[in-house]
Amino acid sequence: MTYAAPLADIKFVLENVAGLGKVTALPVFAEASPDLVESILEEAAKIAADTLAPLNRIGDTDGARMVDGKVQVSPGWQEAWNVLVDGGWNGLPFSPEHGGMGLPNVLNTAVHEMWQAANMAFTLCPMLTQGAVNAVESYGTAEQKALYLPKMVTGEWTGTMNLTEPGAGSDLAAIRTKAVPEGDHYRISGSKIFITYGDHEMVENIIHLVLARLPDAPAGVKGISLFIVPKFLVNADGSLGARNDAVCASLEHKLGIHGSPTAVMAFGEKDGAIGTLVGEANRGLEYMFTMMNHARQAVGLQGLAIAERAYQQALYYARERVQGKPTGWTGSGPTGIVNHPDVRRMLMTMKCQIEAMRGLIYSAAAHVDIAHNHDDAAERARAQLLADLYTPLVKGWSTELGNVIASLGVQVHGGMGYVEETGAAQHFRDARITTIYEGTTAIQANDLVLRKTLRDGGQGIRVLLADVAATADAAAGLAIGAKLKAAINTAIACTDWLVGAAKEDPRLPAGAAVPFLELMGIVVGAQMMAKAALAAQGATDGFLAAKLITADFYADHVLSKVDGLGQSIQAGSKAIMALDEALL
Amino acid sequence: MTYAAPLADIKFVLENVAGLGKVTALPVFAEASPDLVESILEEAAKIAADTLAPLNRIGDTDGARMVDGKVQVSPGWQEAWNVLVDGGWNGLPFSPEHGGMGLPNVLNTAVHEMWQAANMAFTLCPMLTQGAVNAVESYGTAEQKALYLPKMVTGEWTGTMNLTEPGAGSDLAAIRTKAVPEGDHYRISGSKIFITYGDHEMVENIIHLVLARLPDAPAGVKGISLFIVPKFLVNADGSLGARNDAVCASLEHKLGIHGSPTAVMAFGEKDGAIGTLVGEANRGLEYMFTMMNHARQAVGLQGLAIAERAYQQALYYARERVQGKPTGWTGSGPTGIVNHPDVRRMLMTMKCQIEAMRGLIYSAAAHVDIAHNHDDAAERARAQLLADLYTPLVKGWSTELGNVIASLGVQVHGGMGYVEETGAAQHFRDARITTIYEGTTAIQANDLVLRKTLRDGGQGIRVLLADVAATADAAAGLAIGAKLKAAINTAIACTDWLVGAAKEDPRLPAGAAVPFLELMGIVVGAQMMAKAALAAQGATDGFLAAKLITADFYADHVLSKVDGLGQSIQAGSKAIMALDEALL
Repeated sequence: MTYAAPLADIKFVLENVAGLGKVTALPVFAEASPDLVESILEEAAKIAADTLAPLNRIGDTDGARMVDGKVQVSPGWQEAWNVLVDGGWNGLPFSPEHGGMGLPNVLNTAVHEMWQAANMAFTLCPMLTQGAVNAVESYGTAEQKALYLPKMVTGEWTGTMNLTEPGAGSDLAAIRTKAVPEGDHYRISGSKIFITYGDHEMVENIIHLVLARLPDAPAGVKGISLFIVPKFLVNADGSLGARNDAVCASLEHKLGIHGSPTAVMAFGEKDGAIGTLVGEANRGLEYMFTMMNHARQAVGLQGLAIAERAYQQALYYARERVQGKPTGWTGSGPTGIVNHPDVRRMLMTMKCQIEAMRGLIYSAAAHVDIAHNHDDAAERARAQLLADLYTPLVKGWSTELGNVIASLGVQVHGGMGYVEETGAAQHFRDARITTIYEGTTAIQANDLVLRKTLRDGGQGIRVLLADVAATADAAAGLAIGAKLKAAINTAIACTDWLVGAAKEDPRLPAGAAVPFLELMGIVVGAQMMAKAALAAQGATDGFLAAKLITADFYADHVLSKVDGLGQSIQAGSKAIMALDEALL
Repeated sequence: MTYAAPLADIKFVLENVAGLGKVTALPVFAEASPDLVESILEEAAKIAADTLAPLNRIGDTDGARMVDGKVQVSPGWQEAWNVLVDGGWNGLPFSPEHGGMGLPNVLNTAVHEMWQAANMAFTLCPMLTQGAVNAVESYGTAEQKALYLPKMVTGEWTGTMNLTEPGAGSDLAAIRTKAVPEGDHYRISGSKIFITYGDHEMVENIIHLVLARLPDAPAGVKGISLFIVPKFLVNADGSLGARNDAVCASLEHKLGIHGSPTAVMAFGEKDGAIGTLVGEANRGLEYMFTMMNHARQAVGLQGLAIAERAYQQALYYARERVQGKPTGWTGSGPTGIVNHPDVRRMLMTMKCQIEAMRGLIYSAAAHVDIAHNHDDAAERARAQLLADLYTPLVKGWSTELGNVIASLGVQVHGGMGYVEETGAAQHFRDARITTIYEGTTAIQANDLVLRKTLRDGGQGIRVLLADVAATADAAAGLAIGAKLKAAINTAIACTDWLVGAAKEDPRLPAGAAVPFLELMGIVVGAQMMAKAALAAQGATDGFLAAKLITADFYADHVLSKVDGLGQSIQAGSKAIMALDEALL
């Protein structure tokens, strides 16, 4: 079973849920005509199906490895990368000033959904390269931009994020990598782990963005600076110079995404790797968050993508596989297990949450476009507020769902799902990283609760919930509308509880954070389902009528979890730390 | 991180939740003195820690494979098997008449919990052998018992279950393997798949229990007979004869349990494998259910065991790993992530559900002891009724939880959880089979709802819920007691709804079955937590006081899901089949 991009769903969500029209109406996106959007989506879908999806299993069974000190990617990877470079795909969302297409972030998101679904291990490479371009474009000096951006935008060079160290995972304050000034550059030394596409031979140069400390830097996160450390030094004329002292020491042996080389990087084992400072000293974490916010939305997108891939595979199998006569089946002749009520329940559970995630993720991406490009400052601020709140939901909620849905995909296959050749297990393994990298679900939840709810006393969350309530009011005539109203009240009660509980004991909101993130994900997901249902209102058959049914299903089977989560948060948070640690 | 059997918890549950005392009071178990029970548990714990746990990772990385047509198990497997045989462990629950120890099933369950936790891939072999002994003991002829049982009880020979075929997975009616009479035996031919320990060289003979059809058998499940097909024919004097025409064609390449050889078995590729009929013709499925009920409880136990293993590993890591200062931490100096509120929330979520599962599974096992051995017919009937209702909960609920908990185990490890060397990922992969084999979760749910709830109009479920209510009443003074009362009302309402809905459309209860199984699992699990809390009532510190806290946590974070499940069942089941299949 290969992958076919769900273009009808993608276009429907772009137009009716995420508000693509509002984005393409921005002057900066004047060239993003409906025809261009259509042809980009169609072409990206072809690349997904024809180029990337066929390599997904090869990446799993014949993954990246070290050969004679070099990182060798899977067969076909190089050719696939060339397809992206030749088509200029990597530059889709970037300014024409640096060789990009200047198209909306939300359109890039739709393109990457297809590629992540087709081949997640491969698409990590363009994903991280785009994140690196964002950081250099936002904070690099004119010289850095001139030197690095043109080839990064085309994808002739790729980019990486170097944050994690053995002693510094979720706690970036513990970073120890050093940067010592030397003339106009710095000498970087230290060890970084979990560096995705940290090394490979698909391109002639790799541009590492590295967090490190200056000798006089203050302790903690306020003493971290961001550096550009290229694999090969780049001369002023753009030609390549000497090999830098930045090497891949080894690759991790992972549960999944075998096609993606996860490197242990050794900087400065000899004389120190040569790097240049990005922006100002000691503001590295702030800059890195530019990449992180992009990467978090992109990893949330992986949650959606792997879910869609798992769903397609499960649906295909469920139609083909015949096992007995389904309960209540009145059709003639044998039929697939797709008509067994519990298999259908699993497929509907997958499908409705995929639709909710797509609505949320594309909306978040569209809000980034508006926040960056709208003429009106108030509009920009409002879009930024919502994008900031969406980001942890996109990352935290969608990746948790991606795991649940990939596991349901295995379950639909029964025993065959446990056999590796079937492919369902690969999605299950690949998905498992998404709740971990670019910040675990707890990190996302802390971002949502501690940073984005408690700091403003819940004001921002209330703006978001008012936006949800407006949709619920508009959908009052639909089943999901009324249920959404009740769920919003629970969300408001939980927000108030969080703000109050923080004054009593800071551990209470921290313990409640992940359940609150799930609750908010479900509620905002319901808003997206309600928007889709509103766009489909009155339809009696076909694609549009299906949106009404998946919204109903979501209301009964997903939104129904909100009350229990509300209880966990408000009544249950005290029990979290109640047990003496020694008695665990 | 290795495994240490949680003996204090195991003994606490045996005595205070599962009612070991009621079992050992049965005359048949007169020898099961407290001292003997104690020494068996201690010795089994040693075997788990010293013999089986150290082989768990070797089984994963150096799994079973075919070498020159023979199945070679992992290094150390043979020696570990010999330890079990030499200690007579395989015979623990069997009659001394056949060489067993004659000890309670519930004690065997506690022993196997430790071994499944230590090494699930290995312990599948004794698990299936015990199931095969059960079937031969219950339905075999005197000759079959004399010929096969002594060496199966000791573990000198192992046993298998041969049900599944390529076209007959969940649908056993589709079985095509043939059995043709020939004198006093039958010639068996056909292909069986997913045969656990279908072949290996650890023992001199393997006794296959095989479902097949006689030439004149009626179609469907009423035309299936059960046969004993040994790997080597057994002469009347017990010596081994010719190699039977029953061979392992290949092994599956699986997501996990690599140490367990999963065979494709070819019966009768030459002249037909020689087998003998067990019991009467065409009653094979009924007999196989003796093995299946044992196997289903045993697989549910695997859910618990892998959860306990994952929990121990996560807790160890959480204590060792230091990352930043936890929110609200007032201790001096660095502390492990165990004190981060969300890590603690994950650990408590794991711990409380492990305790609930252990209570349920041991209770189910104790009820089997009483159902088989009590003097009073009414007591036997009541115990059988409850055991029958517990079985799908044990299998369905505990294995789903085992997956969730193994996944939380990965999550606690962060990025290290995704690296295979850490070991957390192996538990996650191993756990994934448990919701599939011996009947998927949907099959368990159909057993609970279609067979065991609808057929008697919900009477049996009401007996079970009355039993739960008695505990809730006794625990009315504890937080979990009051919440349990409310949850029981939801369970009763759902039972009534199922019975009513079945008359309207049989697809409604079938679609609601898995959510109902989860609801019932949570409710009966809460009963077990309430029993534990009652036994601990008044304790103010230490092990017993911890039971009060985990019960509170369970009430707020797990029992709180019941309302939402009730909504899914009663309001949401119509939406399951509402969508035209073509629009999925």
